[in-house]
Amino acid sequence: MDIIEKLNWRYATKRFDENRKLSDEKLNTVLEALRLSPTSYGLQAMKFVVVEDKALREELKKHAWNQPQVTEASHLIVLCREATLSEGDVDLFGDNIAKTRELEREAIAEYMGMIKNSLANLDEDSKGQWLARQVYIALGNLLTVCAVEEIDACPMEGFDPAAFDEILKLEEQGLNSVLVVPIGYRSTEDGYQNLAKVRKPLEEVIIRK
Amino acid sequence: MDIIEKLNWRYATKRFDENRKLSDEKLNTVLEALRLSPTSYGLQAMKFVVVEDKALREELKKHAWNQPQVTEASHLIVLCREATLSEGDVDLFGDNIAKTRELEREAIAEYMGMIKNSLANLDEDSKGQWLARQVYIALGNLLTVCAVEEIDACPMEGFDPAAFDEILKLEEQGLNSVLVVPIGYRSTEDGYQNLAKVRKPLEEVIIRK
Repeated sequence: MDIIEKLNWRYATKRFDENRKLSDEKLNTVLEALRLSPTSYGLQAMKFVVVEDKALREELKKHAWNQPQVTEASHLIVLCREATLSEGDVDLFGDNIAKTRELEREAIAEYMGMIKNSLANLDEDSKGQWLARQVYIALGNLLTVCAVEEIDACPMEGFDPAAFDEILKLEEQGLNSVLVVPIGYRSTEDGYQNLAKVRKPLEEVIIRK
Repeated sequence: MDIIEKLNWRYATKRFDENRKLSDEKLNTVLEALRLSPTSYGLQAMKFVVVEDKALREELKKHAWNQPQVTEASHLIVLCREATLSEGDVDLFGDNIAKTRELEREAIAEYMGMIKNSLANLDEDSKGQWLARQVYIALGNLLTVCAVEEIDACPMEGFDPAAFDEILKLEEQGLNSVLVVPIGYRSTEDGYQNLAKVRKPLEEVIIRK
């Protein structure tokens, strides 16, 4: 597999083939890849809402500039951050490390302290910004995994997060929507697939030292 | 290739094999993948500094908690955002679209106006945050591409951006360092490679609707 070929194959798909659904196997690969996304410290302070229900997506579309990919894609993924992150959440993370690696909590006490200190130095706004950035790592991972799997995707910042939070009842689950990504298969009628990819030349984006 | 196997293979590598350098071919794949990173609107308001020079990396290491991967890895990549983004930058982006796709500027005038409006609605701080988030997409892409290529990597937020900016003379190029990623090959002595990956179970991170 040539990864560069795959990255050139992908594009922000605007029109999806409504009749082509992702197989369970393909969807499971995407979800497992999301679960494996790297995050700072490994904290995973995020969740992914997978919306298949069409009526719900019609509702959401109204708050995403009526973009057709919201309903036409096979599935809609809403990438969410935890609204905040408490010391208790860090302790739960510690429990998971200790259990997974069969360690005593003592063995990771220093690491836990370091994470808590680092969080204590952030005000709520900075913490929120930092939590949102983590979701962008998951986005980068998701888009590349989709390209590898020849699944089409459209990364979207253009939606109303407050409306999405309300419709998907995210606030009450302690979540905030950050990004939206419809996934599925491109329609033959999506003209964008025929346009040359626009990128700066390598010498403009890379500085060698 | 099983992408899930690759994602499970990767981990934040702390100790690299100093004697194993990336081949030119491998490095070029990584750099081309960075160039192809998705960004909002396709703006690519970022650059990547690839530091091979050991003396320079010794200098940088002092401002990254003396973490050994900064100097031991084959190459150090510093992911930078543009310090700001002006209407002029958007026009240059428009020039690139028009040239790449052989279009008249008229044909993309609406798209250009939409981007400019959206930027005009951001104050400098929000714009900076948004530009930084874009770099996290590139990070997610980079880490997954490295995994696919069996290149080891260590995503790092733990460094002093102001010191990196000064040492690498980034300010005068209108850049701010956001993230640091040493890449290369894991040392057999890095104990972290033997630890089980810690992740929440799928049912905790995925919500189906």
